[in-house]
Amino acid sequence: MIKVDLSNTGLNALDKEFPNEEVKRIHKMIFDKTGAGSDFLGWLDWPESYDKKEYAQMQQTANELKDKIDYLVVIGIGGSYLGTRAADDMIRGLHPTNGVKLIYAGNTISSTYTAQLVDFLKDKNYGICVVSKSGTTTEPGIAFRVFEQELVKKVGEEKAKDLIVAVTDRSKGALKQLADNKGYATFTIPDDIGGRFSVLTPVGIFPLMVAGVNTDNIFKGAQQAMKDLQADDLTNPAYQYAVARNLLYRQGYKTEAFVSYEMQMQMVGEWWKQLFGESEGKDGKSLLPSSMIYTTDLHSLGQWVQQGTRGVMFETVVDIKKPTMDLEIPMDADNLDGLNYLKGKTFHEVNQTAEKGVLDAHWHDGKMPNIVLNFDSMDDVMFGYLVYWFERAVAMSAYILGVNPFDQPGVEIYKHNMFKLLGKPGVK
Amino acid sequence: MIKVDLSNTGLNALDKEFPNEEVKRIHKMIFDKTGAGSDFLGWLDWPESYDKKEYAQMQQTANELKDKIDYLVVIGIGGSYLGTRAADDMIRGLHPTNGVKLIYAGNTISSTYTAQLVDFLKDKNYGICVVSKSGTTTEPGIAFRVFEQELVKKVGEEKAKDLIVAVTDRSKGALKQLADNKGYATFTIPDDIGGRFSVLTPVGIFPLMVAGVNTDNIFKGAQQAMKDLQADDLTNPAYQYAVARNLLYRQGYKTEAFVSYEMQMQMVGEWWKQLFGESEGKDGKSLLPSSMIYTTDLHSLGQWVQQGTRGVMFETVVDIKKPTMDLEIPMDADNLDGLNYLKGKTFHEVNQTAEKGVLDAHWHDGKMPNIVLNFDSMDDVMFGYLVYWFERAVAMSAYILGVNPFDQPGVEIYKHNMFKLLGKPGVK
Repeated sequence: MIKVDLSNTGLNALDKEFPNEEVKRIHKMIFDKTGAGSDFLGWLDWPESYDKKEYAQMQQTANELKDKIDYLVVIGIGGSYLGTRAADDMIRGLHPTNGVKLIYAGNTISSTYTAQLVDFLKDKNYGICVVSKSGTTTEPGIAFRVFEQELVKKVGEEKAKDLIVAVTDRSKGALKQLADNKGYATFTIPDDIGGRFSVLTPVGIFPLMVAGVNTDNIFKGAQQAMKDLQADDLTNPAYQYAVARNLLYRQGYKTEAFVSYEMQMQMVGEWWKQLFGESEGKDGKSLLPSSMIYTTDLHSLGQWVQQGTRGVMFETVVDIKKPTMDLEIPMDADNLDGLNYLKGKTFHEVNQTAEKGVLDAHWHDGKMPNIVLNFDSMDDVMFGYLVYWFERAVAMSAYILGVNPFDQPGVEIYKHNMFKLLGKPGVK
Repeated sequence: MIKVDLSNTGLNALDKEFPNEEVKRIHKMIFDKTGAGSDFLGWLDWPESYDKKEYAQMQQTANELKDKIDYLVVIGIGGSYLGTRAADDMIRGLHPTNGVKLIYAGNTISSTYTAQLVDFLKDKNYGICVVSKSGTTTEPGIAFRVFEQELVKKVGEEKAKDLIVAVTDRSKGALKQLADNKGYATFTIPDDIGGRFSVLTPVGIFPLMVAGVNTDNIFKGAQQAMKDLQADDLTNPAYQYAVARNLLYRQGYKTEAFVSYEMQMQMVGEWWKQLFGESEGKDGKSLLPSSMIYTTDLHSLGQWVQQGTRGVMFETVVDIKKPTMDLEIPMDADNLDGLNYLKGKTFHEVNQTAEKGVLDAHWHDGKMPNIVLNFDSMDDVMFGYLVYWFERAVAMSAYILGVNPFDQPGVEIYKHNMFKLLGKPGVK
């Protein structure tokens, strides 16, 4: 369901450029759990090993909740919301006309955003899903205080109990204790799956169930990816991608732009940026992950991509074979706009043709390498598939680079500075 | 209203690093209209020279239209929508609770996005503002065919006349002729102002009037910026910014990340990316413009920014002194989350403290230069001010780099390929 096309990158056959033995060694290291960060490999067999009993409980809770609300406020930051939003946007699109709408908070400290969202929700029926392993992270912590108090004020403590769900640690931590004290349902963030790898756990699955997404299909896709990615060498497409981007990095490219021609893929790009940026951006190394939506951004950044600084960026283009919806370009009797030559064509055909024209312009004229990833569709199955596919790719990619794919030591530095300035007890 | 703080960049006093005479020479070239692309300097005195009669007509048309609709579909791509969306998001926020909602089409060829938006609008009261100089650009052209036909189908030809407005060429071109034939109101895109400089023309002003934004205040801000930016040398803050980013580019930095701590500034970042990317990205030169929202993206890309590849990216941080709304962090009797140490503080105070902690972490620990731009607020006056400020900055910056700030030759290459593949008459 994902094919890797390297014919517009200038790379030769991968096994001529990179030792297959190295790929095999790292594959074995991942599955033997002997590499750095191997305590966080729970995602590796998760599509099959996930807790089926908890899954059934989630579905029941979600079904009860979604009949009571029009909006679900998902409170979380980083991996606690990006995968959820990526899935919801990709699968349901940007203007869903039915089902519970997901709306995000606790992913910012912005007073204006938070206060305006409080105002917006005043006359809406809403529930809350708060996602935090510890319950003490600043952004979701202060946002949850606000939205919980608002909801209790609006519907009363008793009713609020049925409208608030926490996804958190199995047994310890502030949020688990708070939820148990107040009688909120809780679901579990596994100990051995880090935030950016967590979208197939209750972190993503519970809010997506409330949104009415078919999460069974998401798991089917992830299971299919597990089957398709068994090879331990360069015949494995996820490893092809990992190696290709590493080879381009070694040639001097320092930015990889994730490009899609579909607006609903924008948050998949944001999820991908966290997955690769946080897994690899350490020890003074790695590609800066960036993203663009075409043809939209060709009318803003296209000039730079075509003729700006060379040798610093390459593109990874997601090609979507089958759109979720399509429509024909209407005839116009007057044809003043001169667009009747497109008659009989669909938007998707024109979009695909634009993609071909851009590929040629960027690679042949612009000398900008393009890795092309061919995706079948943008449905629920495909989402599960791509999640597992990129997770496997990033593990290989980070180990090739020589960094621990599963830690994030750098994000503590600003937090320490901030806590000190805020006078947090115990921080010096 | 915008101050430039270079104390976290490692740069010395600018006049020690860059010849003031060069700034003066380029300033004179801009105002004498003797530089490359000087046919497109209409924006330079636009905040004062704009057509007041047309402005009054726009306000009247907008007032009539906004009483009839709940949504305005703005059809345009690149500079024909980015400034509008930047202004609307920044000034009204991401969840406006009153006034006409702006919704965007014709900025993509995505079939799914377009078809889903058609579905979404079926039971809504909406109007259309189509923005295109020629009326023949593919994306807005095919989208306008769809949405015009849908609206006519829904309300009939007569009523549709009052619900559709075109912003286009004064007298020639397909869209002008179409609008005149059908009796749609039209407003003018000036000949001497390019798309990315056009938000203060009817391109942005008309839809913003419909949205209920105080556009008088936007002009007040732009006029204030004209007054504040009269200096022809390095005492001019817009020129300080232009020179500082050029000096960092010469040091080897190839990406500039536009950073804000406010989600409603995200589209200002997109507008800025077009302004700088399209003005400067030519002749194999210039910084790649990128953007991030903190602290949101610190939980995804923060690891890379702190400890990834060094020497390739610097940050330009927009600091907002006064938020549009603020709220206090609520007390919690149990304090299980340990956040009561923030009691009495507002979200904005914590956000500003995070900003300080990040600045210190990124510059002192991470060796990532940070240009800080101090903004007063995110209101209508400030929007007009920042637009003119960045326009003046990019003109200086591009001329320092030695490129024409006002053309975009590279965006034609993919279009030619696409037209050829689509069999457009006359294209070989």
